[in-house]
Amino acid sequence: MEKIRALAKTVSNWGRWGADDERGTVNFITPAVVRRAAACVRRGDVFSLGLSFGADGPQIGQGGRVNPLHLMSAVGGGYGPDPEGFRYNDDVVVMPLQCATQWDSLAHVYYAGQLYNGFPATTTTAAGAGRNAIDKLAAGIVSRGVLLDIARALGVDRLPGGHAITPAQLEAAERAQGVHVDSGDVLLVRTGHITVFTRDQDREGFMRRMPGLGMAAVPWLHAREVAAVATDTSAVEVIPFEDPSAPLPVHLLCIRDMGLTLGEMFDLEALAADCARDGVWEFLFSAPPLKVAGGVGSPLNPLAVK
Amino acid sequence: MEKIRALAKTVSNWGRWGADDERGTVNFITPAVVRRAAACVRRGDVFSLGLSFGADGPQIGQGGRVNPLHLMSAVGGGYGPDPEGFRYNDDVVVMPLQCATQWDSLAHVYYAGQLYNGFPATTTTAAGAGRNAIDKLAAGIVSRGVLLDIARALGVDRLPGGHAITPAQLEAAERAQGVHVDSGDVLLVRTGHITVFTRDQDREGFMRRMPGLGMAAVPWLHAREVAAVATDTSAVEVIPFEDPSAPLPVHLLCIRDMGLTLGEMFDLEALAADCARDGVWEFLFSAPPLKVAGGVGSPLNPLAVK
Amino acid sequence: MEKIRALAKTVSNWGRWGADDERGTVNFITPAVVRRAAACVRRGDVFSLGLSFGADGPQIGQGGRVNPLHLMSAVGGGYGPDPEGFRYNDDVVVMPLQCATQWDSLAHVYYAGQLYNGFPATTTTAAGAGRNAIDKLAAGIVSRGVLLDIARALGVDRLPGGHAITPAQLEAAERAQGVHVDSGDVLLVRTGHITVFTRDQDREGFMRRMPGLGMAAVPWLHAREVAAVATDTSAVEVIPFEDPSAPLPVHLLCIRDMGLTLGEMFDLEALAADCARDGVWEFLFSAPPLKVAGGVGSPLNPLAVK
Amino acid sequence: MEKIRALAKTVSNWGRWGADDERGTVNFITPAVVRRAAACVRRGDVFSLGLSFGADGPQIGQGGRVNPLHLMSAVGGGYGPDPEGFRYNDDVVVMPLQCATQWDSLAHVYYAGQLYNGFPATTTTAAGAGRNAIDKLAAGIVSRGVLLDIARALGVDRLPGGHAITPAQLEAAERAQGVHVDSGDVLLVRTGHITVFTRDQDREGFMRRMPGLGMAAVPWLHAREVAAVATDTSAVEVIPFEDPSAPLPVHLLCIRDMGLTLGEMFDLEALAADCARDGVWEFLFSAPPLKVAGGVGSPLNPLAVK
Repeated sequence: MEKIRALAKTVSNWGRWGADDERGTVNFITPAVVRRAAACVRRGDVFSLGLSFGADGPQIGQGGRVNPLHLMSAVGGGYGPDPEGFRYNDDVVVMPLQCATQWDSLAHVYYAGQLYNGFPATTTTAAGAGRNAIDKLAAGIVSRGVLLDIARALGVDRLPGGHAITPAQLEAAERAQGVHVDSGDVLLVRTGHITVFTRDQDREGFMRRMPGLGMAAVPWLHAREVAAVATDTSAVEVIPFEDPSAPLPVHLLCIRDMGLTLGEMFDLEALAADCARDGVWEFLFSAPPLKVAGGVGSPLNPLAVK
Repeated sequence: MEKIRALAKTVSNWGRWGADDERGTVNFITPAVVRRAAACVRRGDVFSLGLSFGADGPQIGQGGRVNPLHLMSAVGGGYGPDPEGFRYNDDVVVMPLQCATQWDSLAHVYYAGQLYNGFPATTTTAAGAGRNAIDKLAAGIVSRGVLLDIARALGVDRLPGGHAITPAQLEAAERAQGVHVDSGDVLLVRTGHITVFTRDQDREGFMRRMPGLGMAAVPWLHAREVAAVATDTSAVEVIPFEDPSAPLPVHLLCIRDMGLTLGEMFDLEALAADCARDGVWEFLFSAPPLKVAGGVGSPLNPLAVK
Repeated sequence: MEKIRALAKTVSNWGRWGADDERGTVNFITPAVVRRAAACVRRGDVFSLGLSFGADGPQIGQGGRVNPLHLMSAVGGGYGPDPEGFRYNDDVVVMPLQCATQWDSLAHVYYAGQLYNGFPATTTTAAGAGRNAIDKLAAGIVSRGVLLDIARALGVDRLPGGHAITPAQLEAAERAQGVHVDSGDVLLVRTGHITVFTRDQDREGFMRRMPGLGMAAVPWLHAREVAAVATDTSAVEVIPFEDPSAPLPVHLLCIRDMGLTLGEMFDLEALAADCARDGVWEFLFSAPPLKVAGGVGSPLNPLAVK
Repeated sequence: MEKIRALAKTVSNWGRWGADDERGTVNFITPAVVRRAAACVRRGDVFSLGLSFGADGPQIGQGGRVNPLHLMSAVGGGYGPDPEGFRYNDDVVVMPLQCATQWDSLAHVYYAGQLYNGFPATTTTAAGAGRNAIDKLAAGIVSRGVLLDIARALGVDRLPGGHAITPAQLEAAERAQGVHVDSGDVLLVRTGHITVFTRDQDREGFMRRMPGLGMAAVPWLHAREVAAVATDTSAVEVIPFEDPSAPLPVHLLCIRDMGLTLGEMFDLEALAADCARDGVWEFLFSAPPLKVAGGVGSPLNPLAVK
């Protein structure tokens, strides 16, 4: 944890947007950024980056996370006098808020008893997150999205489990793609790893080892002032961890110290293929979280509009 | 039902986009419409139109619909060797997909044994919707949004329960606001009724009686080729029904015959106030449904960007 | 709380069955008691004392407690090649473990940071009850049951809300009925209050005010060494509380200090009528809790066999 | 299905207890049987035959069946003015009613469009079972239990997957144990297979192949007039099926034609060991189902009292 604590000092955003702030780096999304985002819509094509929510999802039971249960509460339910008249179907879902494509809220992880911006960890109880809940990000997250395809930049179909992405690799992708990540952007990092699940149907392989951001990428994200970062893996960061004694350092530094929301299990395959075709790696990005009261995450269907 | 069947013939879109189409009027959202939508972003201000999902939601138990149960599956869960190290919170939600702000899918209602585009109603089983499920609308719904504030046009704070909105009233609002609903637009209709819940906390009053679209508005929606229509009530249409023997005619005609998705319980108050201030009633509208496999609806946090 | 703490000293069973005990007064149910219970079966008639679990249950949302959601996961699901062959229905329930007829576990309530037998309250986390969970009572609860019908003894159809049952009233009922509560018995106390729900369908009236045991009954329960006590109300004890500044004193003293499990919302009407007819107020009582791992309660269908 | 239909004619109980009967063979449990059951209590020792309900349960996702989700809705929730005063824990369970130790209701399986006693299969909808629901067995199931230990009778620790138990094997066990299954008894059949799960933790091995009753045992159960039959496997009957083209014949014949409730995943290990020690294979058996309104099954904690 010493290395994490040292890094934390250099990337902390506590107090940057006031003592009561619960939105963190989403504050970088200014109206000017939103206008820049809208200007990225050139063709009018829309890409859905979300996985399906259902029994066939990626979960393998780790930490009690299961795939969604989707159940019908009415099938052909009637209403009114006419047997040939009104009929309806209704349904119910039971799901972990972290079960597939999702945002982590700033109440999701912490250390040393404090959440982002110094709120006590005890503000989260069985009744939900009293601070930094996901509904604090309600009027978002819409911004310019930039996709960096690290697998493509390194000339592979997908990065192997355990590959730690470095700032140099991020910048090499920027140069190769002719794009620059600026303040307020949502950064999408493609590793190709999601195909271990979507194509190979290997849930264990998808969930237990993965490529992802290394610790060195954290100061880079801080310097670039990204509003949020998402990848096509379940953890954003590399697993196995670079230092086995300090699990999930990127989570801790991004969420707790920087106030940077992480997006997980985004399916970037079709979008990346399209960007490779037309050479345009920026787009309008829209991924509003559900306003779950006290939620520490939200399931998502993120959209990219080119 | 005779009147409904007669109207159905004049507004049906079955086959319009092919025999296999499951997207209905969302097909009106062409790339050109999306570009027109993006061009509506002038200031870069974002409005969240969603209600909170939680125990304090609007449901009163009708038809088995309950408010969401939000439960923590981990509070301060540990991982790794360091007691001052990584800690996490996780959560689970149990909710009807129709419990608050939501899209109805085209599998939600029907009559005479057939869903939109002629699919048999039997394609929906306890396993979910085999046709017209909500995930068919995944790469959407992003379009130009137009808000028509009928309460404002009629000079009232909110329309009373039982008020049936007519085409004449929709067009009067268009004229008063200087806006025109065109093909592919998402139409948001403000009645002010949501304040019965959000301000007065009168759930029974909110859910049991409401203003809304009358049957005569259906051909108007058809003629204008709207992609989707949403209101600030739980039913979009007027309750009590205009003809007590034919419940929910607007649902049947829009969803089953036109293939027009309905959006319910959108909170339009802040957006309407802003539009009244600046006189601009159009915006980029983004409300991607969750890709619930086989789902007949989706909870939402719709965004309007001006 | 001072009065409660004073009483606690006189009724505490901490350490009585060893420092590791998690079963409390259920320990009074010795093999000899079970044999005495079996000997109560004279006619062979069985009475179900449980409420139904479903949307029509008694809950009104207090403390997040809702009525069960019962959902079908399969209706007419097929298996095998023959269309006229095997078909099945399956279902799922979502329910608070305290939503209708139920046992409280000894992890349900506490004060001053300690559960029954001195276990720290922190043994219960979002992962469940680490100590005193309901599955510790798995090989039970089967014993002799004794029904004391206080409403009948006082000559009323049902006791009014706010009526605090005293030891004198319990003993008067014993004398009137010709029965004596002994060590290891499960005591069922009828107030008649459940008919506010089951007959009058007045959920608010049933849940917000009720007759029940007063604080003075606690030492009496201790002296008689009852194994468990259940009533036909949602709280066992009287509401409003005898001392408004000390809520739910009977819960605290019975569960936390005595290790005495409480049974709630038992429907005693048919059993009481039968006992009044034949003058026999004892029976074999069987109410095994579900072995919910880490559960702090269990839904029940208790049986009385006469 | 022809063989099943032929057997069905010889074992059908349709109409035996009237055209409206929804209880089937539980009707064999007369008051005299209950008295005989109570007389089996000689020592006063109680055995719990239920598995735990929790994330560590036996389910592997077949047919959408998952293990229970147990979630805390309150941990240390406060009430009242005193910080050292009343605190409570509450919880919620989400579970298939068929996820571990359970009764099947008589609405669980069927063929040819009819349930037990000729009720149309269409009486079960997304709203639950309109006929033959589990709550019809509320005042039960308490009877004499008889354990036949087939593994022991055949001199093995446990029967292998695919072993079909025959009437001759059931009768050999009766003779070896000195017990006789009579009208109204609940028959428990031990195969030892549950240890594949409980000891070996091999869920796949437990759920995919198993010993169990063969089709020839069905007429024997009919002749003996057993009230219910339960085993220590998930299907009661042998898997793989004796005739691959006719899946689950014992389910169909017992539940649909005989009206005989099946009990699944009973843990009989400790009880069988005790019976082997004292040579007594009969006991008071008590396993009341939860009264789930419209339920097609019920989770259980069955008790045997010797």
